[in-house]
Amino acid sequence: MARFKSVTLEWKDDRVVFIDQKKLPVEEIYVECTDHEDVYRAIRDMTVRGAPAIGASAAFGYVLGAREFSGDWKTAGVVHMRRVKERLASSRPTAVNLFWALERMEKALISCLDSAQEDPTNILELEALKIAAEDVETNKRLGMHGADLVRDGDGILTHCNAGALATVDYGTALGVIRAAVETGKRVRVYADETRPYLQGARLTAWELQQSGIDVTLICDNMAGWVMKKGLIDLVVVGADRIAANGDAANKIGTYSVAVLAQKHGIPFYIAAPLSTVDISCKDGEAIPIEERDNREITHFGETQLAPSGVKCYNPAFDVTPWSLITGIITEKGVLRPPFDVSLGKAFI
Amino acid sequence: MARFKSVTLEWKDDRVVFIDQKKLPVEEIYVECTDHEDVYRAIRDMTVRGAPAIGASAAFGYVLGAREFSGDWKTAGVVHMRRVKERLASSRPTAVNLFWALERMEKALISCLDSAQEDPTNILELEALKIAAEDVETNKRLGMHGADLVRDGDGILTHCNAGALATVDYGTALGVIRAAVETGKRVRVYADETRPYLQGARLTAWELQQSGIDVTLICDNMAGWVMKKGLIDLVVVGADRIAANGDAANKIGTYSVAVLAQKHGIPFYIAAPLSTVDISCKDGEAIPIEERDNREITHFGETQLAPSGVKCYNPAFDVTPWSLITGIITEKGVLRPPFDVSLGKAFI
Repeated sequence: MARFKSVTLEWKDDRVVFIDQKKLPVEEIYVECTDHEDVYRAIRDMTVRGAPAIGASAAFGYVLGAREFSGDWKTAGVVHMRRVKERLASSRPTAVNLFWALERMEKALISCLDSAQEDPTNILELEALKIAAEDVETNKRLGMHGADLVRDGDGILTHCNAGALATVDYGTALGVIRAAVETGKRVRVYADETRPYLQGARLTAWELQQSGIDVTLICDNMAGWVMKKGLIDLVVVGADRIAANGDAANKIGTYSVAVLAQKHGIPFYIAAPLSTVDISCKDGEAIPIEERDNREITHFGETQLAPSGVKCYNPAFDVTPWSLITGIITEKGVLRPPFDVSLGKAFI
Repeated sequence: MARFKSVTLEWKDDRVVFIDQKKLPVEEIYVECTDHEDVYRAIRDMTVRGAPAIGASAAFGYVLGAREFSGDWKTAGVVHMRRVKERLASSRPTAVNLFWALERMEKALISCLDSAQEDPTNILELEALKIAAEDVETNKRLGMHGADLVRDGDGILTHCNAGALATVDYGTALGVIRAAVETGKRVRVYADETRPYLQGARLTAWELQQSGIDVTLICDNMAGWVMKKGLIDLVVVGADRIAANGDAANKIGTYSVAVLAQKHGIPFYIAAPLSTVDISCKDGEAIPIEERDNREITHFGETQLAPSGVKCYNPAFDVTPWSLITGIITEKGVLRPPFDVSLGKAFI
């Protein structure tokens, strides 16, 4: 019986358990998913969020989907698994890691069925476990490359949560910060609270506090002012999908931060595994942007913040054009513009 | 017995009544102030807020302070009123209208005592009523000048609340929008929710909705993205203090909006009465910036949003340098850079 446990998720052979990220930091509550529909809901409702975390979660959801099937794998099984894949893929539209992980799982299924094995569930479980383990390893490698960009004493601004909780463990943007701290550098982190979902206030501040890393929480609209006051030396954020030219979709507000960084001459880095790159997207225009419910803006829990019936615009992501990005920190090193060239090389 | 009533405040001869802006838009609750200490608290706790509204409120607080006194006006009365003035002036540090209104009240007191009148309270009441009435008139004139800058169909971004509720009535930035609508122009307003106090979500969205003006609520971190999508034609915001060179202190986040507007080639206007200008401040460096309690960021009401004990930075205002400001809309017309010259002329 295989087991895997990280801060974000635990695989218990017949179920996947998520820490409920909607309840952090006030409560540590765990959500058990015993079938692929549970996992679909956990991703859709943001019990688990963050592009790499969604990828690994979907892989375990795919395994649970396989466990739900009994019958002829090469006929009805394939049809069933296509439905499982489509359902999981429809949970959220922007993060490409979701589709990347599901493609990888489907490839493992097909190669397993091609090699005449009858029941592919064990193979699929191993593949999901590999995706999870590789994610942690990738983040650590990525963090090491990124740590070289951080100087002792630096002020670092980050937006949203690209931490252990956004990945299987360790984190991408926060992985860079962790790695810098592990090499003995002192840093001051400024965390944007990241409305409307407050991933910065709830998750990034919590994670860094837990790790003993100096963190100051600010509202999103203070980012420009802390830059103007000279408190920020570099910006590092995650990504949900990176197009072939380097345009990067990330949590709404990232674009504003990138413009502000440029204005103040502050380097702006994206930290993301190569599984976040979608070479089939020519540029940012081709990346679908999820729009979420007004209620995320108008309410906090049951408390109403805005007048009843007010119109809202609630895009969950925006796209930062490659020209505002100083470098993309990946597990293969820090890629520099022109990104169409450097990303192309990274995939060889 | 003198009376005055507007959306923000009501003067009932022996008391001033404020609509509690902390409770809007969910509840319409009124707070009665019967002495100057009550008014001090109402300003400090943001029951009433917005630079011009604070000015008029302090003037009525000064009248209540005068009503508290009996005795020899020319000796003990002067000492008492100096204490009243200092108390009211200490309620909030950034908005200059507060000090402007108190200076004006003190001048009325002194000229009254100089002219041998024994009890100055009626004169002071008339002066406060004049300040209130002039504020509304000023905003209407300012609005008319600003309306010329708005074209039919424009998308207008505003930050915080520079509306009827931030003034005695009508509003400065929202006065410009009201005046444009009154002249038959169709506008689409985008209101930044304005963390941490949510004046945009709670007050601006409510006011515009009440006035039947098309408004879309966004989170602060979406401002750059709506600009990039071409939805914004101009930005108009209020100010809490304008230095002699045109640098303008306004609600935190205004500076970021101004940088974003510049990046997208969108005109950025400040709308403020000349009472907001502090000629004694050479530039923005000299404007004191209020820092408020962490709890405004870490909590919403009783609900905790961030981990316990997390460090925060919570400046209530920032300063937008004059170079990012396209024009300052005042009751004497739209001033253009160089503002040291145009502001100087406006005061002649």
